[in-house]
Amino acid sequence: AAMAVARTLVKQLLGSPRPPAWIFATCRDPEGPRAQELRDLASKHPNLVLVKLDVENPSAITDAAKVVEGKLNGMGLNLLINNAGVYTPTASLDTADAEDMVRAYRTNAVGPMLMAQAFLPLLKKAAQESKEKGLSCSKAAIINISTVLGSIKKTPDSFFKPVISYRCSKAALNMLTMCQALTYKESGILCVALHPGWVKTDMGSQEADLTVDTSVRGLLSVLPILSEKHSGTLLNWEGKAIPW
Amino acid sequence: AAMAVARTLVKQLLGSPRPPAWIFATCRDPEGPRAQELRDLASKHPNLVLVKLDVENPSAITDAAKVVEGKLNGMGLNLLINNAGVYTPTASLDTADAEDMVRAYRTNAVGPMLMAQAFLPLLKKAAQESKEKGLSCSKAAIINISTVLGSIKKTPDSFFKPVISYRCSKAALNMLTMCQALTYKESGILCVALHPGWVKTDMGSQEADLTVDTSVRGLLSVLPILSEKHSGTLLNWEGKAIPW
Ligand SMILES: NC(=O)c1ccc[n+]([C@@H]2O[C@H](COP(=O)([O-])OP(=O)(O)OC[C@H]3O[C@@H](n4cnc5c(N)ncnc54)[C@H](OP(=O)(O)O)[C@@H]3O)[C@@H](O)[C@H]2O)c1
Ligand SMILES: NC(=O)c1ccc[n+]([C@@H]2O[C@H](COP(=O)([O-])OP(=O)(O)OC[C@H]3O[C@@H](n4cnc5c(N)ncnc54)[C@H](OP(=O)(O)O)[C@@H]3O)[C@@H](O)[C@H]2O)c1
Repeated sequence: AAMAVARTLVKQLLGSPRPPAWIFATCRDPEGPRAQELRDLASKHPNLVLVKLDVENPSAITDAAKVVEGKLNGMGLNLLINNAGVYTPTASLDTADAEDMVRAYRTNAVGPMLMAQAFLPLLKKAAQESKEKGLSCSKAAIINISTVLGSIKKTPDSFFKPVISYRCSKAALNMLTMCQALTYKESGILCVALHPGWVKTDMGSQEADLTVDTSVRGLLSVLPILSEKHSGTLLNWEGKAIPW
Repeated sequence: AAMAVARTLVKQLLGSPRPPAWIFATCRDPEGPRAQELRDLASKHPNLVLVKLDVENPSAITDAAKVVEGKLNGMGLNLLINNAGVYTPTASLDTADAEDMVRAYRTNAVGPMLMAQAFLPLLKKAAQESKEKGLSCSKAAIINISTVLGSIKKTPDSFFKPVISYRCSKAALNMLTMCQALTYKESGILCVALHPGWVKTDMGSQEADLTVDTSVRGLLSVLPILSEKHSGTLLNWEGKAIPW
């Protein structure tokens, strides 16, 4: 399998000049073959913790939050990145059906909502304990990995890939991000949707524009520049705004 | 129960100077008490046909399309109005759960997609048989009843009503409308999302701005002015564009 955005985020964060005190890397099967690389990294980096999580399952989400809370042992969580996403490459209006629509929605929009609800106490704690004014990723933030394909305005430019179930779920994720920004602002939590670009992963295919390394380097360089003026917006991996 | 948009659309269409040859009014329970008024109207107006339909049920949608096709007896269908919608007034980020999210999505976004798929052959037939150039509601059109609450850009102005599940489902419906406009253009079908305003119905409550009569009169006066330049846009009951 090609490298996914999730694992590359973990690798680059671990290798950064000032790595986070804790990185919680979630995956559906921490014992399975897809997680081999994460297990190897965790054996070398004691600040990396693997957490089992299927975002389609609401009780698995609250279980994962408890595991993270236990490890943090009274500390807050600064950054929640909702990266999990599914994609049906063939879903045009000729072929999309109710189950494809609902599956994409559960993972791409409902999952991120439930994740933020479950991790909210830990994010609030981080915000309260921070001395920073305003909003930032070093204080407390929710980053939803979205896509330009969820931009209604930009749809005519990219409709050679109709992917209806994916587009509708990501437009909903963009709306969720706006609602989260408005709701969680008073708790000191920044909420932003990021488009990683068209990336060479299983989802993006090898035809894509960007290597995963380039995309993730871009995403991680955008995080430190985010402030309250970005909360409730959709930006790409270079920090450029994308219209809704 | 207060008057709903659906029944008022039927009444005003029946009372218009040039009423349609056929009006198919769908409802979940054509024999039930909520449909009494529609039954009374149908007994006076032979061009009104009541059709049983629950848009959460994909096979009920294809059944309804067969009933309509039988009545039309070889003719096409000019106009499909997707009006059915559900709303959870209390759904903030504190309270929304996965089932509330998925229920709203099935009715408000997936239902309109399946309706258009099922009625597509009849809409295409109407477009083929029309001598009009370009796109119009008198040729062939899909009208999705959406809402300004589905506009991500306008969300900060109306967030005193968070209604997360409703907003996310209607943002997805707006994306669907754009995808339908791009897909069905070559078949000669106009696709527009309309916001009826804040209307005094069960959903809108008696605090709302507009009577149902005023809203529906507005919606019906917008339909004849729609052309290809409006396809893939969201307009209000006065024909004004709403950003995504
Ligand atoms: N690739 C692109 O061109 C592109 C463009 C725009 C946006 N994006 C977005 O970027 C994000 C990452 O995409 P990618 O390219 O890395 O995709 P990918 O290679 O297909 O990987 C999908 C990721 O989602 C996880 N996942 C899927 N369903 C899940 C579930 N129910 N519970 C938990 N995790 C789940 C997978 O975890 P496992 O390891 O457990 O399988 C995997 O990490 C997605 O949100 C995608 O929509 C990608
Ligand atoms: N009222 C407002 O202020 C307002 C504002 C913006 C947008 N809208 C939109 O306008 C549309 C009509 O709303 P309304 O104010 O008339 O709402 P309402 O009074 O609550 O009526 C809801 C309508 O949806 C139908 N419906 C609900 N679930 C259905 C299902 N599963 N299958 C088939 N029909 C179903 C109901 O049919 P039955 O008769 O079978 O129960 C009824 O006709 C909705 O799409 C709503 O989102 C309303």
